[in-house]
Amino acid sequence: MVDYSKFLADRTKYMKASEIRELLKLAEQGNVISFAGGLPDPATFPKEKLSKIAARVIEEQGDMALQYGPTLGVTQFRNILKQFMRRNNVKVNDNDDVIVTTGSQESLYLIGKVFVDPGDYVLVEAPTYLAALNVFRQFGAKFASAPVDENGMKVDVLEERAKKLIKEGARIKLIYTIPTCQNPSGVTMSRERRKHLLELAEELDLLVVEDDPYSFFSFKPVDAEPLKTMDKSGRVIYLSTLSKILSPGMRIGWTLANSEIIRSLELAKQAVDLHTPNLTQYIAMEAIKEGVIDEGIERAKKLYKEKRDIMLEALEKYFPEGSSWTRPIGGLFIFAYLPKGIDTKKLLPEAVKRGVAYVPGQSFFAEGGGENTLRLNFSYPPIDLIEEGIKRLGNFFKEVLNK
Amino acid sequence: MVDYSKFLADRTKYMKASEIRELLKLAEQGNVISFAGGLPDPATFPKEKLSKIAARVIEEQGDMALQYGPTLGVTQFRNILKQFMRRNNVKVNDNDDVIVTTGSQESLYLIGKVFVDPGDYVLVEAPTYLAALNVFRQFGAKFASAPVDENGMKVDVLEERAKKLIKEGARIKLIYTIPTCQNPSGVTMSRERRKHLLELAEELDLLVVEDDPYSFFSFKPVDAEPLKTMDKSGRVIYLSTLSKILSPGMRIGWTLANSEIIRSLELAKQAVDLHTPNLTQYIAMEAIKEGVIDEGIERAKKLYKEKRDIMLEALEKYFPEGSSWTRPIGGLFIFAYLPKGIDTKKLLPEAVKRGVAYVPGQSFFAEGGGENTLRLNFSYPPIDLIEEGIKRLGNFFKEVLNK
Repeated sequence: MVDYSKFLADRTKYMKASEIRELLKLAEQGNVISFAGGLPDPATFPKEKLSKIAARVIEEQGDMALQYGPTLGVTQFRNILKQFMRRNNVKVNDNDDVIVTTGSQESLYLIGKVFVDPGDYVLVEAPTYLAALNVFRQFGAKFASAPVDENGMKVDVLEERAKKLIKEGARIKLIYTIPTCQNPSGVTMSRERRKHLLELAEELDLLVVEDDPYSFFSFKPVDAEPLKTMDKSGRVIYLSTLSKILSPGMRIGWTLANSEIIRSLELAKQAVDLHTPNLTQYIAMEAIKEGVIDEGIERAKKLYKEKRDIMLEALEKYFPEGSSWTRPIGGLFIFAYLPKGIDTKKLLPEAVKRGVAYVPGQSFFAEGGGENTLRLNFSYPPIDLIEEGIKRLGNFFKEVLNK
Repeated sequence: MVDYSKFLADRTKYMKASEIRELLKLAEQGNVISFAGGLPDPATFPKEKLSKIAARVIEEQGDMALQYGPTLGVTQFRNILKQFMRRNNVKVNDNDDVIVTTGSQESLYLIGKVFVDPGDYVLVEAPTYLAALNVFRQFGAKFASAPVDENGMKVDVLEERAKKLIKEGARIKLIYTIPTCQNPSGVTMSRERRKHLLELAEELDLLVVEDDPYSFFSFKPVDAEPLKTMDKSGRVIYLSTLSKILSPGMRIGWTLANSEIIRSLELAKQAVDLHTPNLTQYIAMEAIKEGVIDEGIERAKKLYKEKRDIMLEALEKYFPEGSSWTRPIGGLFIFAYLPKGIDTKKLLPEAVKRGVAYVPGQSFFAEGGGENTLRLNFSYPPIDLIEEGIKRLGNFFKEVLNK
């Protein structure tokens, strides 16, 4: 037999499977109340309308929708996305362009591929989106992070760290941030800190990657513009996705940035997958045009707000003294901090045995720490099981603390 | 303003835009008969049936089809693909597995990502598929190639080159081949050469990447099994796609190989795009189950055979003396060799002006050469324009030769 391992390229060292992912895969199957995933509630999928749209698109525009398409994405769809962003207060400059990607995961990947050389620093929130860390890590990035509080990333801490790094000769390329309803913490960056972040990027000549999957359904108005809108010099690369507001299974993400940047991403994408499926782009385009997404956002907001409220109440009721958690104004996640000494990663297998799952917070911290934290998703679990799940979890943690 | 170029990673040097691609993009728009693309005829798209399938899938299975899915692909679909391959004489071993990719372009990309380190050699046909060369090149591959004749790749030449390289200390990782109805040449590898190729891979302990988008519609039975079927030690990585036999715009490709290899590709894919759209997988699954693809293949065969015949006749009639061309038993392409001294790349702009486009053959040769060659696609151009296009081209080349 062939020894396959001898053929592997060096970079596969970045590609180890996550034990937690494997464990959580199992949890999804059993009789477990799972707060672990990041899935939208399928009740928000506009099945009936999408079904009609899909049928019509294939029948009437099938010659295009089923054929090869441009690497940048379907031209009309890119224009519709620009309108959609403008309606949502995202500034689209004249010299900006849009590339459609296979989920915003691919946007992240292409940005890593185009901009990150081994040893380059990426500045991030602590905690931040795990899959972004993994992508940048694959391209050899190092990280410097700043903690978040209820006003988002502490930009003053970031500034200090960044300036120290530069003095030491480090090369910083990007700031990666999810300013609104962040994953995993749920917090939203204040207007002042956004301003400060952009000034810092300006001063140090850095690019800013603004990942924005959640702002479309914040439960109350966000008292700040997107970084893309506040940016004056074209250094913000804005990404978003239809995964949370229409359907993740369609894998429609996009990047908006200066057209020079988009051109680089296009060349990178050509080799990766030639283009994102035309068919899903055509369906998504009609869904936006016909207002299906706008309606859906309104309905999802109501549902998720209710679920969030139930989870917050249950946390209050059942979580041990000395815990704290974020109170997100939108998004899908609450992040909880347990008393020091509790290790949520070690406790996960036992929690799953007791019928409740979560994501241990540790892996969201680029530079370590967070052993006592966990991420709780409120969008996916059935509304009538949220209290019971948090109760199980709270009781379990109390038990551990009282041992 | 920001100087974006200073942020680019080193590897972007592999990402220069192709002038030819730009020129051909223009050609597609004007009043030009184009033999340049590699597109299926949209008349082969089963629009009516797919329209019904799409509507039903979203209505009845929308909770799954619109939701996130596994990185490997939808489990039932992967099983259906295994059955589909078995029906098409592709051997699926018990310890094999399948990963669904966003077009087979992504299969190629993931293979490059997982297996190719800078300086590794990949052995290829001359000419071979340009996009495969570009992917492997991005990961720093070097190439050694062997010419094709009417029996496919000259494996004895490849053997000699490979052994010489190994003596010189080179590290060879993969043989990349399109054995049946090759792109761009249209030729099919004989049974004997396939046997020889596998023996060589065995002797030198190499992996073999068998790219097989075209064998499903060869116009007469291929007198040979797929390499995957002849392989005895699990060293063949088999890729295929629904792009030519159902719809390229759905971007459904896949890789079949030993499950250890598939596991590596899965880990690589996680970072790239998380997973291929569920929706298109569900639609494709139903299309296979209901026989839509099998029927489509039969209809496409008839249409493409007719188009090929017209092109071959026209070549006979109009191409200059001293030219030769392949006579493919299937696929989408004919490859032509003009008298030495003609440079098809230099002539392309003038050809486009005269209302006909092709792909200059040069870039399909990994190690240079092929200046006098061109690739002609017969699947896409309208049937009644093929003769006229070849006439324009033949007359133009004759004119150049008589100067």
